Amino acid sequence: MSNTELIRKLRAALKPENVLSVPSELVVYDCDAFTVERHIPLAVVFPRSAVQVAEVVRACSDHGCPVVARGAGTGLAGGCTPPPNGVVIVLTRMNKILDIRLRDAMALVEPGVLNLQLTNALSGTGYHFAPDPSSQGTATIGGNVATNAGGPHTLKYGVTVNHVAGLEVVLGDGSILQFGPVEDPAALDLARVVCGSEGTLAIVTKIWAKLTKNPQACRTIRATFASIDDASQAVSQIIAAGIVPAALELMDRGILDAVEAAFALGVPPEAAAVLIIELDGPEAGLDSLLEQVIALCRNWNPGEVLQAKTPAERELLWKCRKMAVGAVGRLSPGYMIQDGVVPRTRLPHIFRRILEIAAKHRVRIVNVAHAGDGNVHPILLLDERDRDLTARAKAASREVLEECITCGGSITAEHGVGIEKIELMEKLFAPADLRAMHRVRQAFDPASQLNPGKKYKTICQ
Amino acid sequence: MSNTELIRKLRAALKPENVLSVPSELVVYDCDAFTVERHIPLAVVFPRSAVQVAEVVRACSDHGCPVVARGAGTGLAGGCTPPPNGVVIVLTRMNKILDIRLRDAMALVEPGVLNLQLTNALSGTGYHFAPDPSSQGTATIGGNVATNAGGPHTLKYGVTVNHVAGLEVVLGDGSILQFGPVEDPAALDLARVVCGSEGTLAIVTKIWAKLTKNPQACRTIRATFASIDDASQAVSQIIAAGIVPAALELMDRGILDAVEAAFALGVPPEAAAVLIIELDGPEAGLDSLLEQVIALCRNWNPGEVLQAKTPAERELLWKCRKMAVGAVGRLSPGYMIQDGVVPRTRLPHIFRRILEIAAKHRVRIVNVAHAGDGNVHPILLLDERDRDLTARAKAASREVLEECITCGGSITAEHGVGIEKIELMEKLFAPADLRAMHRVRQAFDPASQLNPGKKYKTICQ
Repeated sequence: MSNTELIRKLRAALKPENVLSVPSELVVYDCDAFTVERHIPLAVVFPRSAVQVAEVVRACSDHGCPVVARGAGTGLAGGCTPPPNGVVIVLTRMNKILDIRLRDAMALVEPGVLNLQLTNALSGTGYHFAPDPSSQGTATIGGNVATNAGGPHTLKYGVTVNHVAGLEVVLGDGSILQFGPVEDPAALDLARVVCGSEGTLAIVTKIWAKLTKNPQACRTIRATFASIDDASQAVSQIIAAGIVPAALELMDRGILDAVEAAFALGVPPEAAAVLIIELDGPEAGLDSLLEQVIALCRNWNPGEVLQAKTPAERELLWKCRKMAVGAVGRLSPGYMIQDGVVPRTRLPHIFRRILEIAAKHRVRIVNVAHAGDGNVHPILLLDERDRDLTARAKAASREVLEECITCGGSITAEHGVGIEKIELMEKLFAPADLRAMHRVRQAFDPASQLNPGKKYKTICQ
Repeated sequence: MSNTELIRKLRAALKPENVLSVPSELVVYDCDAFTVERHIPLAVVFPRSAVQVAEVVRACSDHGCPVVARGAGTGLAGGCTPPPNGVVIVLTRMNKILDIRLRDAMALVEPGVLNLQLTNALSGTGYHFAPDPSSQGTATIGGNVATNAGGPHTLKYGVTVNHVAGLEVVLGDGSILQFGPVEDPAALDLARVVCGSEGTLAIVTKIWAKLTKNPQACRTIRATFASIDDASQAVSQIIAAGIVPAALELMDRGILDAVEAAFALGVPPEAAAVLIIELDGPEAGLDSLLEQVIALCRNWNPGEVLQAKTPAERELLWKCRKMAVGAVGRLSPGYMIQDGVVPRTRLPHIFRRILEIAAKHRVRIVNVAHAGDGNVHPILLLDERDRDLTARAKAASREVLEECITCGGSITAEHGVGIEKIELMEKLFAPADLRAMHRVRQAFDPASQLNPGKKYKTICQ
């Protein structure tokens, strides 16, 4: 079958207005937010249902053409960069909230529903959707499932997989399956393995999302420290004390400069690092827990400990944190954000190493971190026009991730492996582990048609 | 290779004293606590390490001989009944607690460690292992993982999979893999799919168990009701109010008769059903939550609401609940305990149907239930010498499970499918679902050597 025939078939299945095949339109879909590698796809399709997704998968399969599912394209690791000569299945028009059942604390959504769209729809019900990546205003829930997305509140509430009760998926052979939403102990837990598989096992066409009760109360503070080392020691102590804050975020001086310029958060200029700590739960006992947290911070000589006194003050704190990466545009024409994870006790070490690696490669690195999770997000400032700087940034980036592996951590906590980190998988996992993953992938997608070349390489058996 | 050669090979690998092959010794291993189907195995082996398990798996594979892993044999669905002409790998001599790391809230244990052995070892540390099946004094943690075991406190703390941070496993080809214990977002979550796979994907040789902090305080009450219907309506209302008790257990009059005879719990004879409700968490707010629960019970005219005032009173309540099934011996020479699950709103319905089914088949059924989970455990009284009664009990048992499926529930919540319920899998799942499970099974165990004939039938692709 020629490409023209495939496109004709896709148009017939989806109506012509849902299939793009003109190069000037296709170029928009040549990468996600990882812009280093790009491939112009053969076609881009906008299905409206699982049946249409299945038709596309089957047509492409007949044509020997790989497919990749894509949501909003906010992915940072190239997870939905088109495979060479592939078809992009954009799920953003499958964007309906199909059902909200508060009694079961569950919502049934299509994969193109935006993360924040669901939480907004729940406004006033006393429930919310817990995963809250910083991109939640634009990222889709389908994409959250594919990357197993986290966010500041992951510390207490867990990454996306913990908020998925069931999935409807299309497999590589075009069959449509449903896992859940009632957890069935008689079944193998296949929904779980699909979460975070970055589109390599199945294309998700419906999600039964678990809803989380809004906490009765919360307390949000920001504490400044004279060094990033002091701040990360405080994090390690809070976690070691058995306290589970709702969120425990760190920003260093570098990122604070950007945040101050953009939002005037009002952090004193002498502060080298800030922790944002949120506690939530029943009102009773929350203040004494807060005192305990502040006392642990005091062991590390905080400069200033301020509590958000109004919802507006709390919102400003979270806005500053969530928009921090965007504000980096004030520091540099370009940047690369990394996503590594280490045991919490190794946080002071990894921040020290990041400083050393930055100096060694002559790259400025500023830091945000879901510190409570041991999840660091060093942001490497660069200018893509400066090839030498870009190359040094990439080398530094890789060295940071290798250091995370050495610490007993991993190369991603929430962004995924995509194509960006695929070379590091062999450093992280033994051949037998990779073989086991590959075999499971084959069980779902025998022809390796779904998003080949991502997460793990195809391995000969 | 002849059987004799295989046994010689096993003796060489494990030392002769760790291999049984004399019929009079083998007969002990012909079934687990599901006694209806029995097969005398070819041999029974007692490995001491993952390497030995792998050697056994490889030797049996060369011989074309299936294997089944077995812990204490407390399984109720025949999950570790030997496959015909198979070898039983007993893991009870791999019974060491290898490490307890409180800072990480984790323990590394061998699969033969008893559930209660771990919790006892943690005494005084402020932590415990949360899964608490009624068999916890004899059941192994490896068996808990294989069946994804629950218990009364599953309601709040979740079944075993939620308490597993990592696994070391032996696959069907004899390779030894480790999943976790640090959750690696770069990997597929293969540990999760092994939990509850009833020995059909892999043999677990080490478990990194997550430890749970002991709650600061708890309140335990028992409330009596004039009918099982009233009691189950109260359960449904408590759950619908968004309250998550640590445990919410139901016992009906039939089982109470046995419990009274055995332990003198002191429930008034006019009570038709009892709820045991436990709340736990921070001391602050616990009493007001308890009041709320009692108020919800009062909507259904409880006869008596008593609170355990001392640890001894609480222990008696739990002893009565956990030993209840054993006490059934006072009512009948034999029994069959079932394990179905329904949405909590359907609890009143399923108990009504259980009564009707009992009458229709002329079988006495008494009930315990993890009611908060919608998990019913009807106990069908029988005498195995009475073939007609036994046949009627089996028919009633099947009808109860089919009713659970009709209600949108499942045929097992915590006992597993084993061989007992394998015929019902096709009623519960669509062919495409079963095919997906089978393919994943093949990914782990291409030759279907691990526990064939359990959980799902081998399906032609």
